[in-house]
Amino acid sequence: MPEKTLNIGVVGCGFMGRTHSNAFRTAPHFFDLPYKPVLKTVCSRNPETVEAFRSRWGYETAETDWRCLVERKDVDVIDIASPNDTHAEIAIAAANAGKIVLSEKPLGRNASESLAIVDAVQKAKVPNMVWYNYRRIPAVTLAKQLIDSGRLGRIFHYRAKFLQDWTISASLPQGGTGLWRLDAAVAGSGVTGDLLAHCIDSALWLNGSIASVTAATEIFVKERTHVRTGKPEKIEIDDAATFIARFANGSLGTFEATRYARGHKALYTLEINGEHASIFWDLHDLHRLQYFDHRDESQLRGWRSIHITDADHPYMKHWWVPGLQIGYEHTFVHQAADFITSLSKQEPLWPNFQDGLATDFVIDAVLNSARDGQWKKVQHAA
Amino acid sequence: MPEKTLNIGVVGCGFMGRTHSNAFRTAPHFFDLPYKPVLKTVCSRNPETVEAFRSRWGYETAETDWRCLVERKDVDVIDIASPNDTHAEIAIAAANAGKIVLSEKPLGRNASESLAIVDAVQKAKVPNMVWYNYRRIPAVTLAKQLIDSGRLGRIFHYRAKFLQDWTISASLPQGGTGLWRLDAAVAGSGVTGDLLAHCIDSALWLNGSIASVTAATEIFVKERTHVRTGKPEKIEIDDAATFIARFANGSLGTFEATRYARGHKALYTLEINGEHASIFWDLHDLHRLQYFDHRDESQLRGWRSIHITDADHPYMKHWWVPGLQIGYEHTFVHQAADFITSLSKQEPLWPNFQDGLATDFVIDAVLNSARDGQWKKVQHAA
Amino acid sequence: MPEKTLNIGVVGCGFMGRTHSNAFRTAPHFFDLPYKPVLKTVCSRNPETVEAFRSRWGYETAETDWRCLVERKDVDVIDIASPNDTHAEIAIAAANAGKIVLSEKPLGRNASESLAIVDAVQKAKVPNMVWYNYRRIPAVTLAKQLIDSGRLGRIFHYRAKFLQDWTISASLPQGGTGLWRLDAAVAGSGVTGDLLAHCIDSALWLNGSIASVTAATEIFVKERTHVRTGKPEKIEIDDAATFIARFANGSLGTFEATRYARGHKALYTLEINGEHASIFWDLHDLHRLQYFDHRDESQLRGWRSIHITDADHPYMKHWWVPGLQIGYEHTFVHQAADFITSLSKQEPLWPNFQDGLATDFVIDAVLNSARDGQWKKVQHAA
Amino acid sequence: MPEKTLNIGVVGCGFMGRTHSNAFRTAPHFFDLPYKPVLKTVCSRNPETVEAFRSRWGYETAETDWRCLVERKDVDVIDIASPNDTHAEIAIAAANAGKIVLSEKPLGRNASESLAIVDAVQKAKVPNMVWYNYRRIPAVTLAKQLIDSGRLGRIFHYRAKFLQDWTISASLPQGGTGLWRLDAAVAGSGVTGDLLAHCIDSALWLNGSIASVTAATEIFVKERTHVRTGKPEKIEIDDAATFIARFANGSLGTFEATRYARGHKALYTLEINGEHASIFWDLHDLHRLQYFDHRDESQLRGWRSIHITDADHPYMKHWWVPGLQIGYEHTFVHQAADFITSLSKQEPLWPNFQDGLATDFVIDAVLNSARDGQWKKVQHAA
Repeated sequence: MPEKTLNIGVVGCGFMGRTHSNAFRTAPHFFDLPYKPVLKTVCSRNPETVEAFRSRWGYETAETDWRCLVERKDVDVIDIASPNDTHAEIAIAAANAGKIVLSEKPLGRNASESLAIVDAVQKAKVPNMVWYNYRRIPAVTLAKQLIDSGRLGRIFHYRAKFLQDWTISASLPQGGTGLWRLDAAVAGSGVTGDLLAHCIDSALWLNGSIASVTAATEIFVKERTHVRTGKPEKIEIDDAATFIARFANGSLGTFEATRYARGHKALYTLEINGEHASIFWDLHDLHRLQYFDHRDESQLRGWRSIHITDADHPYMKHWWVPGLQIGYEHTFVHQAADFITSLSKQEPLWPNFQDGLATDFVIDAVLNSARDGQWKKVQHAA
Repeated sequence: MPEKTLNIGVVGCGFMGRTHSNAFRTAPHFFDLPYKPVLKTVCSRNPETVEAFRSRWGYETAETDWRCLVERKDVDVIDIASPNDTHAEIAIAAANAGKIVLSEKPLGRNASESLAIVDAVQKAKVPNMVWYNYRRIPAVTLAKQLIDSGRLGRIFHYRAKFLQDWTISASLPQGGTGLWRLDAAVAGSGVTGDLLAHCIDSALWLNGSIASVTAATEIFVKERTHVRTGKPEKIEIDDAATFIARFANGSLGTFEATRYARGHKALYTLEINGEHASIFWDLHDLHRLQYFDHRDESQLRGWRSIHITDADHPYMKHWWVPGLQIGYEHTFVHQAADFITSLSKQEPLWPNFQDGLATDFVIDAVLNSARDGQWKKVQHAA
Repeated sequence: MPEKTLNIGVVGCGFMGRTHSNAFRTAPHFFDLPYKPVLKTVCSRNPETVEAFRSRWGYETAETDWRCLVERKDVDVIDIASPNDTHAEIAIAAANAGKIVLSEKPLGRNASESLAIVDAVQKAKVPNMVWYNYRRIPAVTLAKQLIDSGRLGRIFHYRAKFLQDWTISASLPQGGTGLWRLDAAVAGSGVTGDLLAHCIDSALWLNGSIASVTAATEIFVKERTHVRTGKPEKIEIDDAATFIARFANGSLGTFEATRYARGHKALYTLEINGEHASIFWDLHDLHRLQYFDHRDESQLRGWRSIHITDADHPYMKHWWVPGLQIGYEHTFVHQAADFITSLSKQEPLWPNFQDGLATDFVIDAVLNSARDGQWKKVQHAA
Repeated sequence: MPEKTLNIGVVGCGFMGRTHSNAFRTAPHFFDLPYKPVLKTVCSRNPETVEAFRSRWGYETAETDWRCLVERKDVDVIDIASPNDTHAEIAIAAANAGKIVLSEKPLGRNASESLAIVDAVQKAKVPNMVWYNYRRIPAVTLAKQLIDSGRLGRIFHYRAKFLQDWTISASLPQGGTGLWRLDAAVAGSGVTGDLLAHCIDSALWLNGSIASVTAATEIFVKERTHVRTGKPEKIEIDDAATFIARFANGSLGTFEATRYARGHKALYTLEINGEHASIFWDLHDLHRLQYFDHRDESQLRGWRSIHITDADHPYMKHWWVPGLQIGYEHTFVHQAADFITSLSKQEPLWPNFQDGLATDFVIDAVLNSARDGQWKKVQHAA
C-alpha cells in the first residue's frame, strides 16, 4: 500500500453511494495505486442513515450537511452521488473550495446547470470527473481501442438503446427514496437524462460529436401518486425517448430509451457498423463483445462472441483468470483506479465535466426537438 | 390432387420468379388444395432466358411480351415478379383483362403508382394479392395471433430494422440484372421500398396504422458506374433510411434499414413490447420466436426461445416433425397455399393491393420527411 | 431439363417417403442434373394410403407389394424408405435384380443384417447409397472441408449428442404407424439405431474410425401398451444411450442420445476440438456453424457464428441470397442431386452401404458394451 | 459493523488466496453479518511474497510457516488456499489445534487423504467447510431450489462438462508457481481433481449420490519440461477425463473435463433433464439460468433465458438493481457470508469436509475405472 493518501468525501448513501464506496475500497487491492484512497467521510441528510452507511463501509466520519463536508480541510475529493437536483450546487461549492470534484451523471439537470458547473471548475482549475462508468467496461474500452486504431474504417451507423421495464405498473408512485427518478423537479428529465445519457456519452466517446437530431418522447402513464402530496400528480418526465442523429463524421445514429420495454431490465446495447468491421455490445452480458470483420476469410466470416476475460483485454489482468467474468460494480473500480493514477501523473481525467456537458447539450437538443418536432443542431462548448 | 385447376402466368425469371414458381410447384404436395395450380406460362423479355426458365420449372409455355400473356384466355392468374417499374403497367392491364392479379412488393414505385393499381383492381373487381411473404413465416404468424388475442396488453413500443451489407463496396455498379435495385428509375427508392417496405407491412399488420413519422435517409456512396452508360452516375436511391413513428394506438415505433451494416446479410428483426408480454423475431433465425411474459412466476421470468417447429405452430403440421426447421422459401409456399384456399372459399386475400398501398403511403411519408426534415402525417386510403 | 431419365421407385409412404419424394421432385429445379428423375412408382402395403400418396406426389403408378416393384423393368432405382425391419429383405432382392439401391438409415437392424446387405450389393455390383442426410447440411459439409484441409490441426475431442423428449409420457403406446420406433422387433434398437446412428455416421466421416467404446443404455419407462395386443408389453428398446469412444486418431469421443431430455425436440449437436481450431454445430439452428480459430489475433478471438447462406458455402449458390436460410428437407435434395450427378459420372456414391455398415458395427459395440459393462473393440469391414 | 470479530488466518497467496481475502474483505459491506471477519494473518513460504500480499490486502500480520499460524491463539479460522499437496497436513494440524478449518477444493489429493482429514475434524469436532464455490452462484443456487421443490419431477439425465484450452501448447512447462496443476505429485490428479471435482460436487448436491461409473482419461502431451529439473519429464496427470455415471436416483450422467478444448476458457456447463422441466447453466454466462418448463402453454414452450439479477433471486438483493450482473468472485463472498452466518447460528456449514470426501470418492472411482476399464462402484462414507 502506498504511503500517500487521498481523502475521499462522498455525498449520498443510495445506490451510487454504494458503488463509489465499493470502488474506492476495492481498487487498491487489485490495482497498484500511487495514493491510498481513504474513506474519510460520507454525507447524507438523515443522521441514522448516514451513520449506518458510515459503519458498514468503514468511513471515518459522517456528515449531514454537505456544506460542512465541502469545508473540511481533511478532505481532498468531493464525490457527488446524490440525486440530480443537488449536483450543481454542491459541485460549484466544492470547486470554489478548491476540491477535486467528482459527480455522478448526468452532470446537471439540463445543459444550463452543467454549464455553470463547468464554469466553476474551470475558474477554480480543479480536477474533475463525471462517472460515466460504462466507458470502463472492458468490452467497451476494447471497442474504443478498435475504433481508434481504424480497424472499422469509415463509420456508417451507430445504434444504441437502453431498455427497462420497471415503471410499467400505473400504481408505482413518484418521488421519495429510489423513485425520485420519476419526479421531474429532482431528476430534470426522465429516461433521457437517466438512460439516454449513458448512450450519448458512449456515442460521443466512440464515434465523435453529434451534429443534429430529431426526436420523440412519450409519457405512457400520465399521472402517478406523489409520495409528498399523497395525490395523483401529473408526470412531467419522459417515459420513453427516441431520436435520430447525424454525427459529424457523416454516420447515421439511432437512439432509444424507455422504461416500458417489457422483458428488459437494463438492456443497454450499442452497435457500430464500419466499412470493414462491426461491433456490438450489450450490458446484460457485459463481459462479451461481439465483433465482425469482413477481412476474415469469406467462407468463415461470422460474428465473434469474444469473452472479455483474458489478460490482454483492458483491465482484466488485474482480476482473475481467463473465462471468469467480472460484473457491473467493476466499472466503478476501474474508474476509481484510473482516476487516482491519472491524478498522480497530472494526466487528464476522463470523462471530465466538459464531457458531461457535451452529453447534456445533446440531451437538451433531444428534448427540444421532441417538444416542437423540428431537427435541432446540437450546441457545442466554445 | 384436385381436379379443378388454376392456371398461373408468371412475369419475371429472376429471384422472385424462382420463389413463386417453387411455391406453386410445392404447395400441392404439402397442403390439401381445392385447385391444382398449373404452371401455364412464364414471361420474360429475353427468349433464351425465358425458355431455360420454362424448361427448368416445367411451365407449359413461355412468352416474351407480357401483353400477350395478359391476353391469354387459358391463364387465370397474372403473377408479377418483375422489377418495380413494371408493376403498375402490368397490374392495371391484367386487372382490365379480368385476371386475378398478384404482385411482388412494393406494389408501385410510389404511392401514386399504387393508387392507380388499386383503382384498377377495384374497378375490375378482381381478386388481388401482394407478396409480403414474411407475414407467413410461422413465427410471425404466431406473433400476430398472440397480439390479436390481447396477450401482450397495451402496446408501448414497436421496433424494426432490416440490415444488409452488400452494397458497401464503391466498385459495385448500378443497373442491370440483379442490380436494378440501385437504379432509382427502376426501383423507385432504395432501402425504403426494398427493405423498410417489409418492416412497414409487418408493423401495420401487427400493430395497426401509423399516424406520423420523422425520418432521415442517407446516400453513403454518391456515384456508381451505371451498366447502361459505363460511366459514373449519381446515385439517387437511399442507401440507408431510419424513421420514428407514432402509431394510431399510441405506441412509439423506431424503424431502420440499410445496406451498409457490415456483418448483416438480411437481418430483419422486429420487437414489440406490451404491458404484459413482449415478442422478438429475427429473419436470420426465422424458425424461432422470442417471447417474454411478465405473468410468469417472478423468479423464473425470462425470454423464451421458442423453436417454431411443432404441429400446433402455424403452418407447421404440413411439414416435418418437431425440431426440424423450414426456411425462407416456405413463406411463399404458405402464401400460395393460402391464396388458393381463400380464393376457392371467396374469402379475402391478404395482404391485398389496398394493404400494399397502405405501406406505400408510409414510404412516401418517410421519404418526404427525409427530404424536408418535418414530421409527416401518413395518408390513408379513403 | 435433361432428356435422359432416371426412374425411381420408392418403398414407403411415411415421413421418409415424403422427404425422398420431395427431394427427387425438387432437385432438378435447383441443380443442373444430367438425368431427370422420374417418380415412377411408390409402394406401400395399404392400397388407399399408397394411392393417396401417389396422387399427392405425382407418381405415375403405385404398388402394394415391394416384390412387384423390384421386378419392374421400368424402374432403375429402388429407394427404401420403409421401417427398419424391411431394409435387408428389400435391399437384397433389389440388388439381386440389378437395381441401384438406396436405403434409409440405419442400414440394417444390426450389423449382421447390414453385412448381408453389403454382400448382396457387392456381389451384384450395383450402386448403393444410404440416406445419412445430415452430411449434406451445408454447415456440416463445410465442417468436413475445414477438417480435411487440416485447419483444425490434431484433433483432441469429438462430442455429439442427439436429444429429444417425445417419449416421456408413459401413456404413449408402442407399435403402429409412427410408433414402430418403440418396438424392438421392428426398429432393431431404440435411440442407438435411430439417433446415435446419425451421430456415429457424422463422426466417422468427420473424424475417422472409432477403435473402442464403453457404453450405458437405459429404459426409463419399462412397459407400454402395444397397439397390436392392446396390453402393456415390456419395452425392449433403449430409451437413452451414452458412450465414450477412443478414435483411431487418438482423440476422445463422448456420445449421447435420448428421448427423455425435456425441452429438446431434435437437438443434434456436434463439436470437434482441434489443436488450432474448433467447430460446433446444432441441428436446431442447422444454417449456422460455430467456429473458433486460435490463430485469430489474441484480443479478438471468439466463437464465430457463421450464417451459412452465402454463395461460397456448400450447396448454397443453388438456393437464394445471403441471409436467407434453408431447412431440414434441403439435405435430402442435396443428397438426391449429388446422387444423380455422381451416378452419371460413375463416381462413388456416398455414404454407401459399406459406410452404413461401419456405423452399424459401432452400434453393435455400443449395445454389447451396455449389456456387459466391458469396453468393446469396434469391428471393421475386411 | 458487528462488535464480535472472527479472526481469519489464510494459507496461500496465489489465485485462491486472493479470492478468499477479497471475500472476507467484501462480505461485511454487502451482508449483515453477526461477526466482523478480521484479516488477521496470511501465511506463505516466501517472506517477500507474503509481505506484499499482507500489505495489499491489509492483513495485520504475515507468517512464513503454517505451523506457527496454526498455533496462534489469536486466530479462529485456518483457511487453506495453498496447493493440493498441503491440504491434508495443514487441515489435520489445524483441527488438532481446535481451529475452525476451511479448505480449498479438492479436499485431498485422493480419497485416502480426504478420509484422514475428515477423521481429524470429526475427532476434534471443529466446524469445517470446503470451498466448492460454484454452489453459491445465484443461478446454481436457484437450480438447487427448483430441483428440491420437485419442480423438475423425476430426473432422467445429468450432463456436465468443464472445458479449458490453456495447456495445449507442448512448450508449456510443468511445476512451479501457477503450473503446479500439471505436476501429479502436487496436484494429485489433473483435470479430474481440478475441474471434474467441481462438476461432481455440483452433481452430488443437485442430483444426489452416484452409484457407479465407467471412465476414460487421456494424456495428450506426454512429456513437459519440469521447472525443477529443467528437463522433459513424463506427465502423470490426466489432460482429459470423461465418465458415464449411474446416479442412485436412476438417472444417467455424462461428465467430461479437459484442458484441450480449443476455444473454451472455463466453460463449465451443467444440464439436468426432468420429467416436467429442465435446467441449463454455463459458467461463461454465470448470471443466467436457462429453464424449460413443459407445463407452459404448448405453443409457447421454449427455453427461458433468465437474467439472475432480481432481488428475489438467491443472494441478489444484497447487490445492485435488476439487470446488473455480478461475477466470479461473488461466489466466494456469498460463501464467506453464509459461513459466518451459519457459524453464529451453529447451523451446519456446507459443503463440509464430508461433502468434499464424497466428491473424492467419485474421483477415485473415475481414475480407477480409467486405469482398468471396468465399471466401479463409488464408495460412500460410513
